Amino acid sequence: MSSTLRILGIDPGTATTGYGVIELCQRNTYRYLGSGIIQTSKNLPMPERLKIIREDVLSLIDNFQPENIAIESIFFFKNAKTLVPVAQARGVVLEAAGSRRIELAEYTPMQVKMCVAGYGKADKKEIQMIVARLLNHPTIIKPDDAADAVAIAICHARNRYSLPVATANPAPSVTPVVG
Amino acid sequence: MSSTLRILGIDPGTATTGYGVIELCQRNTYRYLGSGIIQTSKNLPMPERLKIIREDVLSLIDNFQPENIAIESIFFFKNAKTLVPVAQARGVVLEAAGSRRIELAEYTPMQVKMCVAGYGKADKKEIQMIVARLLNHPTIIKPDDAADAVAIAICHARNRYSLPVATANPAPSVTPVVG
Repeated sequence: MSSTLRILGIDPGTATTGYGVIELCQRNTYRYLGSGIIQTSKNLPMPERLKIIREDVLSLIDNFQPENIAIESIFFFKNAKTLVPVAQARGVVLEAAGSRRIELAEYTPMQVKMCVAGYGKADKKEIQMIVARLLNHPTIIKPDDAADAVAIAICHARNRYSLPVATANPAPSVTPVVG
Repeated sequence: MSSTLRILGIDPGTATTGYGVIELCQRNTYRYLGSGIIQTSKNLPMPERLKIIREDVLSLIDNFQPENIAIESIFFFKNAKTLVPVAQARGVVLEAAGSRRIELAEYTPMQVKMCVAGYGKADKKEIQMIVARLLNHPTIIKPDDAADAVAIAICHARNRYSLPVATANPAPSVTPVVG
């Protein structure tokens, strides 16, 4: 690998798409480059909302120049009604990655939890605290969608280079390995 | 309305996206301008496939200059596994419409059948025969995905201008009103 790997993590949604950019430095340390959300108003027609998401994702790619994009895969869902808009937003994000020829990887929510916390039942708050610690960030990253996107980026870094994560033992007392 | 309305109907999918272009002329007559399919290989990565779909839809828009786009809405589904790729392709098509600022309308499969055949339980073959008759096309339009897209375009024409359709009576013996 080159000395650093820059990763854009994305958590897509029609109303809110979270993003987070990290750099994996040598020796399994991370640098936090930024995070945030793309929001679209529910008063806009869907084609317009998707256009905004695509344009903003392209701007993020152009500004941060990531080598890889990591995105959550849709695996389980509670509500078919929310699945369609999420998948539509996801399609636009995938297409944006394709149009800039950026390598893209997908991870299930379970994989993200396993990679970041070491066990698949970690709750949102735990993940957020581990993410902040890994990045030496003074507070948890807000809002939740941005924190989720950063976690996806960290998952990709660890997965790609087989970096140490906490044991897969599902015991909640496991201590995550920090960068 | 202007003397004609040009409509691009689209039936999105990752492997095959059907399209059909018609012109609604005065006095409820239609002109068939073309139809076909956009195919992407399952051997390509998903971002690349979605990029091809977007580019081809933009080319269709630029070549045919439709005033409206009509697309099938995702309402019911049998298989969650196929729903996600269809919705992703759909997201890209909606975004393409948005990026060219073309007015877009959505119809359920039931609405398309009602509009074209006059009853919601018309089968695929019946719809195809009615579509061919309405367009004075010597044969049914092939392949199925292209015929579906033309039916969606006809549905939009009728719906938009409250044109006569066959009675909503669900009796299968109903005679559809032709152009």
